[in-house]
Amino acid sequence: MTGRIGLDRLSLNQATVKHLGLAEAVTLCARHDIPAIGLWRDRVAETGLATAAAAVRTAGLRVSSLCRGGFFTSGGAAGWRGALADNRSALAEAAELGTDTLVLVCGGLPPGRRDLGLARRMVADAIGELVPEAQRLGVRLGIEALHPMFCADRCVISSLGEAVDLALRFPADAVGVVVDTYHVWWDARLAGEIARARGRIVGFQVCDWVLPLPADTVLGRGHLGDGVIDFGPVTAAVSAAGYDGFVEVEIFNAGVWDAPPDRTAATVRERFATVFGGA
Amino acid sequence: MTGRIGLDRLSLNQATVKHLGLAEAVTLCARHDIPAIGLWRDRVAETGLATAAAAVRTAGLRVSSLCRGGFFTSGGAAGWRGALADNRSALAEAAELGTDTLVLVCGGLPPGRRDLGLARRMVADAIGELVPEAQRLGVRLGIEALHPMFCADRCVISSLGEAVDLALRFPADAVGVVVDTYHVWWDARLAGEIARARGRIVGFQVCDWVLPLPADTVLGRGHLGDGVIDFGPVTAAVSAAGYDGFVEVEIFNAGVWDAPPDRTAATVRERFATVFGGA
Repeated sequence: MTGRIGLDRLSLNQATVKHLGLAEAVTLCARHDIPAIGLWRDRVAETGLATAAAAVRTAGLRVSSLCRGGFFTSGGAAGWRGALADNRSALAEAAELGTDTLVLVCGGLPPGRRDLGLARRMVADAIGELVPEAQRLGVRLGIEALHPMFCADRCVISSLGEAVDLALRFPADAVGVVVDTYHVWWDARLAGEIARARGRIVGFQVCDWVLPLPADTVLGRGHLGDGVIDFGPVTAAVSAAGYDGFVEVEIFNAGVWDAPPDRTAATVRERFATVFGGA
Repeated sequence: MTGRIGLDRLSLNQATVKHLGLAEAVTLCARHDIPAIGLWRDRVAETGLATAAAAVRTAGLRVSSLCRGGFFTSGGAAGWRGALADNRSALAEAAELGTDTLVLVCGGLPPGRRDLGLARRMVADAIGELVPEAQRLGVRLGIEALHPMFCADRCVISSLGEAVDLALRFPADAVGVVVDTYHVWWDARLAGEIARARGRIVGFQVCDWVLPLPADTVLGRGHLGDGVIDFGPVTAAVSAAGYDGFVEVEIFNAGVWDAPPDRTAATVRERFATVFGGA
């Protein structure tokens, strides 16, 4: 591994403790000396934007990202303008919450369509439309490549290389990529694509790939070390590409969600220290 | 679509009618005027190699491929030599059955390991060892990229580009790639990778990606037209790259397996004619 990553760069993505409201997740981080949190819009909305922003500030927490914008294709052509409006709201929320990264899950095939090229054009066009607002607010759109098994129904951006190709079409202060180990670990060209993303990596999310996949493949993620991902090479590549921001632990897993949140937070910290050598 | 593909190029992969023995699958093809079959080693072994070879010859069927060799990593370093021996047997079986293509499912991570680079070197080294035997027998090793969701446990070759990179390290009369729509349809760089595979495409397998994925993700395949794959562009690319061999319909789906085989064969023919315009 190229260098260690200390616990001062740990962020707990709120999805890892899905059953907690925002205030509870914030106090959990404070209690476990986790310096940053990745927030989710539904929990922010439930709390109220101003209240949520005040809660993280009061706790002295940094907000590593807001999840999530995107879904540009899900409503088809008719819903595209509405998706833009929703993403403009998300950008404003990110700014208010004090994070400079809005994570994008770009959307799958439009309903009833098989045209991947069309879907990808809808995504690119939407990002282009959002650039001025992103620049004005100082929030970057983080294109996240999702695992190819989600291509049809969640995100047509299926590899980091594709995400980088897309990001490079737009200004670096407005559009970047989010590297999530769960989605990209399998890629034989990963190191090269991460290097190509230099200056564009706006988020680094980690969790493990656990076998067997559960019936709901969205939930097949695990604590660092519980699966097959070799975090060393990908982390070294991300660091070598100049990324020095927070590392978000984001785990979608029904068992983790049902565990006591304090145990989850403790495990997240402990595994992070072990895997990234930053005790 | 670039050109139509006639029913004279249809092959039924035996896995589509998984519950049939070899003799039954052969007579099913003959009954439905399907000119070729993709055979599986377990069914060949059950029948006996000589008997199986005689059955397809007598029926006037062509054998488009033998499935499957590979699994070079599954036994770890200790099992690697044994895997080579098994693959030499598979090459000999392919020759005896009258097909020039052995489909490779290369294997996932070695047991207890997280090192994708090691796994990929084990695959490459194994293929290199098998080249002389493949050339002697006139059977090509067809590297099949499996969907990235199978990277950990079935095949560390996860994209067509990676398969092409690997194949190009060896002589064209010994090593090629198999394009399977189910595994590669999501890839934004697919057309370019298929073009790069010119002269190396030794098999083209088709089935559809059906949502939602079933609990066992191996079985999430469907008849052409039942899912989201746009077969036009990939077929055009494969044809433009010079491939003019059989097109195998290979469907892993518990519902299809439980259907009456004659209905399955009729559906396969009908969908093939519709999708490939070759009525």
